[in-house]
Amino acid sequence: MSGTDTQFQPASMADRASAQAIGFLMQQGIENADCLSLAAGFVDPETLPVDLVREATVKLMGGPAGKPTLQYGTTPGSDSLREVFRNYLTELEGDSTQLKSLSLDRIVLTTGSQQLLLLVSQALFNPGDICLVAAPTYFVYLDVLDGVGAKAIPVTTDENGMCPEALDTELQRLSSEGQLHRVKLVYVVSYHDNPAGVSVSAERRPRLMDVVRKWSADQHLFLLEDAAYRELHYDGPVLPSIFSYDQQDKDDPQHVILSQTFSKSFSPGLRVGVGVLPQQLVKPVFDLKCNEDFGSGHLSQNVVASVLQSGAYRQHVSRLQHSYKGKRDAMLAAADEFFLDIPGVSWLRPNGGLYVWMTLPDHVNTGFDSDMFKQATHTDKVMYVPGELCYPSDWDQRPRNQMRLSYGVLDNEGIREGMKRLASAVRAVV
Amino acid sequence: MSGTDTQFQPASMADRASAQAIGFLMQQGIENADCLSLAAGFVDPETLPVDLVREATVKLMGGPAGKPTLQYGTTPGSDSLREVFRNYLTELEGDSTQLKSLSLDRIVLTTGSQQLLLLVSQALFNPGDICLVAAPTYFVYLDVLDGVGAKAIPVTTDENGMCPEALDTELQRLSSEGQLHRVKLVYVVSYHDNPAGVSVSAERRPRLMDVVRKWSADQHLFLLEDAAYRELHYDGPVLPSIFSYDQQDKDDPQHVILSQTFSKSFSPGLRVGVGVLPQQLVKPVFDLKCNEDFGSGHLSQNVVASVLQSGAYRQHVSRLQHSYKGKRDAMLAAADEFFLDIPGVSWLRPNGGLYVWMTLPDHVNTGFDSDMFKQATHTDKVMYVPGELCYPSDWDQRPRNQMRLSYGVLDNEGIREGMKRLASAVRAVV
Repeated sequence: MSGTDTQFQPASMADRASAQAIGFLMQQGIENADCLSLAAGFVDPETLPVDLVREATVKLMGGPAGKPTLQYGTTPGSDSLREVFRNYLTELEGDSTQLKSLSLDRIVLTTGSQQLLLLVSQALFNPGDICLVAAPTYFVYLDVLDGVGAKAIPVTTDENGMCPEALDTELQRLSSEGQLHRVKLVYVVSYHDNPAGVSVSAERRPRLMDVVRKWSADQHLFLLEDAAYRELHYDGPVLPSIFSYDQQDKDDPQHVILSQTFSKSFSPGLRVGVGVLPQQLVKPVFDLKCNEDFGSGHLSQNVVASVLQSGAYRQHVSRLQHSYKGKRDAMLAAADEFFLDIPGVSWLRPNGGLYVWMTLPDHVNTGFDSDMFKQATHTDKVMYVPGELCYPSDWDQRPRNQMRLSYGVLDNEGIREGMKRLASAVRAVV
Repeated sequence: MSGTDTQFQPASMADRASAQAIGFLMQQGIENADCLSLAAGFVDPETLPVDLVREATVKLMGGPAGKPTLQYGTTPGSDSLREVFRNYLTELEGDSTQLKSLSLDRIVLTTGSQQLLLLVSQALFNPGDICLVAAPTYFVYLDVLDGVGAKAIPVTTDENGMCPEALDTELQRLSSEGQLHRVKLVYVVSYHDNPAGVSVSAERRPRLMDVVRKWSADQHLFLLEDAAYRELHYDGPVLPSIFSYDQQDKDDPQHVILSQTFSKSFSPGLRVGVGVLPQQLVKPVFDLKCNEDFGSGHLSQNVVASVLQSGAYRQHVSRLQHSYKGKRDAMLAAADEFFLDIPGVSWLRPNGGLYVWMTLPDHVNTGFDSDMFKQATHTDKVMYVPGELCYPSDWDQRPRNQMRLSYGVLDNEGIREGMKRLASAVRAVV
């Protein structure tokens, strides 16, 4: 910088957004480009629907919806589009009557689900407010919380998802410490979550709602249900959303924000997400989104609506499920082949999603600066996501011996080779 | 709300975003749907490029760029896309060498230019900070400033754009009041602005930069050049951007954020904007955008890149200029026909853009609650944008007797009829 000028300091909002795990991760991806990547959360490029997008666009631009698609619209998306997305949500929920009668006003189309996660967080949190999160949880959302100055507090989570009793206990603790008024939100990735591949069990879904309702007598709590991986379901029971347990009584206030995206089930590049908001959040979120962009891209939204209406989307998701199921099986088979005889190593067997969550012996740190990460990336040429990123960074009890392994991008052969290399790295450091 | 639950209060960020002029305006549009609209800032639906979008998508999805378009990418847009947009900016600037060598890192693709306006504002302003704005200015940006808690201070502006002397005087005043350290930005719509249709003159462009540089010795100032209407140019000189006067010396710090959009020149529904950032703002803006959406929609970006590369975009803009020029002429002819003999009424004659700015006699208030607005919308069935929206709402000296009239949406006959009705309303209240 020139001596004739003064130093520039970014505003606090930019400052808080400045240390994102995703940034470190992408940097590691660039620096370790020669590695097989079990880290990338990208979807399988083979499945990307170029033909469906072309056909939908041709149909769209040749019809009456062509010009409206290219014109300004309304911030949350047009009513006709939102109706298509409401039908989609209704179908997912098993033709729930409750959803059929959902007011279109509560539906918002966003730039991926990421934008909804941010807008909801901006609407809820003042700096210093608190969000309860599963442990582990989606590390990008921890960055969003940092960005709005909110504190993430971990809640015990096992292979059945977030424990309602642990949530209750944590709220009791915060209440006794006079902090309950700072708690605004519970964040749960409810299906085949990122990073651990676990779903909140059928039995726990209504019980999480009960805890949220109970404490809302003292402090209105929302629950953000991130259902990004809902349709990447390969086996096990099909579960109703947590959202479906909200608002059984029309006079009750609503608690659940339902966030869905077409990034995993169709195409991330289209950046189409859909959210359902509690009535109380409609105006704050729409106001924020209006300041942000007046609405997300209509072309992408209309392409997705078109394949939803034609039935092509359902067929695409079926093919996707079949393909990812094979890759999930390939990763679990490779885990059995290469890791079963390494003492102290365990992993979860997901029913869906894109990830296998692996735990190493307690003393094996997996972080970016660890011997394990160096061994994996420098010697064995394989990359993973360090599990510690998936816990609040100021939580000193966070486990540091875990790894998120993705089977999204590699083919079956690549998955096996990646797991073989990873086992070699683990053996070297155990 | 149920008595069993506590009241929800939105966070301060949502609260600050809650009273947007655009919201009131859209509400008025809905309530006065039976009016001819000289208010809507929409583009002419006849010009929307459905054929070009269809052809570009077909080409794209059938080629090697198809799958990458549908996959995740990087937050600011891929390098290959940003190179296409750099070439476009270079061409606009008359093949400027400076732009040819612009680092791709400084280019960001956004969801319309609106997202860039917000991200830059989030990166610069803490609540209580100050932005200097033209008077009148783009009312939506005043809402953005409200949203981040920044104070807008008006700078005298005439038919040659913002006055450099007035900017200097205002900075001098703020400095003498000990407020200079709160000033972060000067906001200028540099070409055929919204709302007044005026451009900053050739002579004033470098002088605005001189003022910004001069005061940056004490407090680093940025200048946000919103060039949304740059290509809607019908006659008069083709002007270099204010950006082109920045960074003549590579060692100097950069001051200008250049914001461009394809919403006016191609399609608003695609939501594609492109910005050039001073090096110091690259990381803060990218960090904020990463938290927001990981990147805007690739399909729209690639469609625009495709028509830029094929030359179809240039041809489209030529047709657009021809069409809007005719509509501009129709509105000015109707102004001459119906308003010339009304005492105290005057208007500007724009060389481009979408708007004619009309001033009524001092005592005629044009606001939403005024007799004039009621007369126009209820009796004469025509709607306009009250000029007072285009000044900071806490500025008690703001003119309240002006109107923004748009010729964007109506055809020539509709424009004449709208102006005839408006003249009737003015006569009734003068």
